[in-house]
Amino acid sequence: MLGMALRRAIPQHGVDEIALFDRDPRTASESLARGAGDRLLAAPEAALLADTLILALPVPEIVRFLEERGKDMKAGSLVVDTGSAKRAVVGAMRASVPPSVHAVGGHPMAGTERPGPQGADPDSLRDAPFVLSPVREDPEALARGRILAAALSARPVEMEATVHDRIVARTSHLPHLMACALALVVGGVDVNRGEEVRNLVGSGDMGATRLARSDPAMVAGFLSANADELRAAVRELGDTLEKMVSTLDEGLEPLSRILAEARAETARVAGPR
Amino acid sequence: MLGMALRRAIPQHGVDEIALFDRDPRTASESLARGAGDRLLAAPEAALLADTLILALPVPEIVRFLEERGKDMKAGSLVVDTGSAKRAVVGAMRASVPPSVHAVGGHPMAGTERPGPQGADPDSLRDAPFVLSPVREDPEALARGRILAAALSARPVEMEATVHDRIVARTSHLPHLMACALALVVGGVDVNRGEEVRNLVGSGDMGATRLARSDPAMVAGFLSANADELRAAVRELGDTLEKMVSTLDEGLEPLSRILAEARAETARVAGPR
Repeated sequence: MLGMALRRAIPQHGVDEIALFDRDPRTASESLARGAGDRLLAAPEAALLADTLILALPVPEIVRFLEERGKDMKAGSLVVDTGSAKRAVVGAMRASVPPSVHAVGGHPMAGTERPGPQGADPDSLRDAPFVLSPVREDPEALARGRILAAALSARPVEMEATVHDRIVARTSHLPHLMACALALVVGGVDVNRGEEVRNLVGSGDMGATRLARSDPAMVAGFLSANADELRAAVRELGDTLEKMVSTLDEGLEPLSRILAEARAETARVAGPR
Repeated sequence: MLGMALRRAIPQHGVDEIALFDRDPRTASESLARGAGDRLLAAPEAALLADTLILALPVPEIVRFLEERGKDMKAGSLVVDTGSAKRAVVGAMRASVPPSVHAVGGHPMAGTERPGPQGADPDSLRDAPFVLSPVREDPEALARGRILAAALSARPVEMEATVHDRIVARTSHLPHLMACALALVVGGVDVNRGEEVRNLVGSGDMGATRLARSDPAMVAGFLSANADELRAAVRELGDTLEKMVSTLDEGLEPLSRILAEARAETARVAGPR
């Protein structure tokens, strides 16, 4: 997706060429075919020669790549990632990438639950937040990160990794976990009645399990990398559900009041639709 | 929405006229203006003269209407509702509607979270499940319910009220509660950082709070009317979340496996997209 959007930006932003690497050669070829890059790299080491290295991998693999190859990155180049958890990545950048390399954590918030090149839609990056999390005092890294975001038509948002992770634990990671838990609860309702469940599932309601269609390895990666905040978020959710359920016997008024608060919060956070 | 779809069906299905009543005169006028009926009723009592009486109200008000007016319903007429909880409604029909009246619980599963005539889209009823829950041995009631569903282009699904409520607690009521709880958790994340939360909320992620935009009184009505099943569903959700969180420290493999199970359940229940 980044590649597709970047290639469009070539003429205006002075990008020479985009080289791709994916562990899975088929994914790499498909990405190339869909216009995400100009050529494929034979091995990940070759990426170390790039002026800008974008690590678009599950979070644990980003961290591993930084730990194993960070020391070999090219002085003066920019390294940025696209992972959904930033503390772990920024920590690994700080520890493993030499200060001669410009490093910045990145999180373009425009993915879909569909993995791979098929799910890529470069238009979804338009005006999407592209979080940039500083690694160390390096204005050049942030400036280049902003240029990258702008080249993608995304909206750069500078934010400390800890703040990012605290918020995203609740706006994204918790919803992923909830969608999966709900899918399992629905799947477990009277196995014999599977047919009846299927009969009743309108497309609308099961929007609530949409995120459960995401790639398990990718999701496990960012959930694990943000485990502390996620645990706290799950506790908050449990307390809130408990509070709501406790009103079920008190007539409609107390429950309606909580539901109205929730509606107000949704409107406040997301703005008018 | 029902009215709009029914009026289209007038020529083929022998509907004479559709009369509307809403406690809120403005809503009634708007519905009339949007083509949901032929005329407005001055008082709810007038509805008792209809050949088919459709109670499209929050569940507790359906129950109250049945308790207060059920005895005055016209012999030979059909009474059906549209509430999202069926045990309470079917129980009130059994207790308060005389056997000379054909009564059947109804749940057209095609609403949106937008209340009132603005949210009404008669096309959303096409092929949507329209649950019919028997009240007593009355084949005529079910047959007429099927005709009504067919006239709306919906798909009639006959189902005992208890089975409906058990399933819908998990496929719809729990998702409503979860969306609201999530909205409150997100709203509570560092109040000072409201601006940053807004900055990060992409349209995609906050799909998880979409159902929190529903009308609080309507939602409180069906959640309360299905309290026992909802409590059980919340316990199942809590246990599942707990199980998932407990894997966070065990490496990626156990968590990935649960996420993959969830994805498989989603595919199994909803079918291929």
